[in-house]
Amino acid sequence: MDRETTIIEELKAAFPGYIGDDAAILPTIEGKASYLISKDLLIEEIHFRTNYFHPNDLAHKALQVNLSDIAAMGAIPVAILCGIAIPLQQLDYAHHLLRYLIDHCTKAELAWIGGDIVASPTQLMLSITAIGKATHITYRTTAQVGDCICVAGNLGYAHLGLVAHEQSLPGFEIYKNALLRPYAKIAEGQWLATKVNTMMDLSDGLYIDLKRLCNASHVKAVIELERLEPTAHFVAACRAMQLDPVETMLIGGEDYGLLCTINYNSYKEVKDIFQLHFGYPLLPIGYITTGHDLHFTYDGLPKQLNLQPFSHFKSTSVQN
Amino acid sequence: MDRETTIIEELKAAFPGYIGDDAAILPTIEGKASYLISKDLLIEEIHFRTNYFHPNDLAHKALQVNLSDIAAMGAIPVAILCGIAIPLQQLDYAHHLLRYLIDHCTKAELAWIGGDIVASPTQLMLSITAIGKATHITYRTTAQVGDCICVAGNLGYAHLGLVAHEQSLPGFEIYKNALLRPYAKIAEGQWLATKVNTMMDLSDGLYIDLKRLCNASHVKAVIELERLEPTAHFVAACRAMQLDPVETMLIGGEDYGLLCTINYNSYKEVKDIFQLHFGYPLLPIGYITTGHDLHFTYDGLPKQLNLQPFSHFKSTSVQN
Repeated sequence: MDRETTIIEELKAAFPGYIGDDAAILPTIEGKASYLISKDLLIEEIHFRTNYFHPNDLAHKALQVNLSDIAAMGAIPVAILCGIAIPLQQLDYAHHLLRYLIDHCTKAELAWIGGDIVASPTQLMLSITAIGKATHITYRTTAQVGDCICVAGNLGYAHLGLVAHEQSLPGFEIYKNALLRPYAKIAEGQWLATKVNTMMDLSDGLYIDLKRLCNASHVKAVIELERLEPTAHFVAACRAMQLDPVETMLIGGEDYGLLCTINYNSYKEVKDIFQLHFGYPLLPIGYITTGHDLHFTYDGLPKQLNLQPFSHFKSTSVQN
Repeated sequence: MDRETTIIEELKAAFPGYIGDDAAILPTIEGKASYLISKDLLIEEIHFRTNYFHPNDLAHKALQVNLSDIAAMGAIPVAILCGIAIPLQQLDYAHHLLRYLIDHCTKAELAWIGGDIVASPTQLMLSITAIGKATHITYRTTAQVGDCICVAGNLGYAHLGLVAHEQSLPGFEIYKNALLRPYAKIAEGQWLATKVNTMMDLSDGLYIDLKRLCNASHVKAVIELERLEPTAHFVAACRAMQLDPVETMLIGGEDYGLLCTINYNSYKEVKDIFQLHFGYPLLPIGYITTGHDLHFTYDGLPKQLNLQPFSHFKSTSVQN
């Protein structure tokens, strides 16, 4: 168990019922609608580098990463608070960043209701707190045996973008864009909220995020690898970077798709209407069964994969 | 106008009615009680150094600094979210810090409802979002001409503690403790909420915070310097550090007292009951009049002071 997990486990023990989902819930006095609240940190040289993140990209991403947590709970984002720590030599970059962030909030009809601006000795750091409102909240603790596991959004794209940027590879624009300009699936989250048993966003990669869902719901997940169906374009890009396509889809982070589990009897209808409604597929990738942890099959036969899960503490370089 | 002020002005223009108080307000659906929300950043080498901040002190301070914003709005703190960015070499320090923070939250009956734990390349950074509940909210925009300006809590103590620690001076424990272990005036904030016209907390020093109150309320404040009455002990400590006692009381930050303005007809009664109730004085230090900005008198005569206000961007050393 890594240190991040240890600390989170200690928090869960100290504050049972609160920790562990994408966003926290503030029930209103009357109990009709709830505020959802989430908080993310973005640290220079860990989550971004200013040499390939234009201030407008970083503003976009910092906002969308937080809205994604709100979307994953089935909520409508309504407001943010923004904390920023600025090194002296990056005052201009930070000022542009904040102006773009104001602009993105205005366009998204989000109120910027507070925050903190302080100095930083070396790294630029951003901390956004996002607030949403929901009447139907989706959790990650409520997966049912027999549920179909589905994913909305591309898998592994942002990871290819990260590798391309870190290795200064020309081209690969679609993947670089996935890294720099992810979009929180807000409309999808609200639409799915009443149709799924669980939902969460894919921030740290399918492998680690689905493990978290299994732990939270006390169930086992089986991923049917043949369903992942990487496109020929994605496979070619992976080959150019000497990466395995399926492994990249499993461990690549920062795609900000939605991971959900849907009752087996209704998932086909949900999947079909989703495609009609949003113009891209809700991909079924496996099922929930009794047990624990994450397992893989290929054409029905068990398959062992030796994947390295994401941890914030393994290195101090930019990570997915 | 410094860069922090410029950015805040741009935010106020973009989000009128939201920015500018200690905490943001989330009205509930039914409009009976409101959630208050505030966010602060604490950055290593800017706001603290680990060589003289024990993890327990930093946990205490990080929490109290945020609760102070909630207290200043007349609210009861109910929950926090905590974001932390941890350098590899400070994993142990950070783990202790988080354990102490859990402990402080538990003792204060605060729910820890979420957050984010990430790596940091060099500095330890903490971002706490605090949430409170209030039925009677106090603002900084509603000072009335004729109001008496009052302060609850010591002025300049934390600044002396900072100087003592930064210069490795032995002794001065009362001031060092004021720096390391401030207490948010939560009970005082709630008690005062129904009796004051404005209230805010003193985080950046009386000089800069009272200026903010004047700007927010479109009034002028007059500080009657003879009322500040530094104690003999404080004067002696200032002399030992070659500091002017009155200037230190005006510009020293991080005391986390409460600054309020009270109707002239009721302030004497409020002041007397406050002393009885809390066992220390609510100190009247001047009055609100027409005009703008902050002015000083000594025994009724105008007095010019050349004070340097606090700015986060002046240096990258630890600041008050």
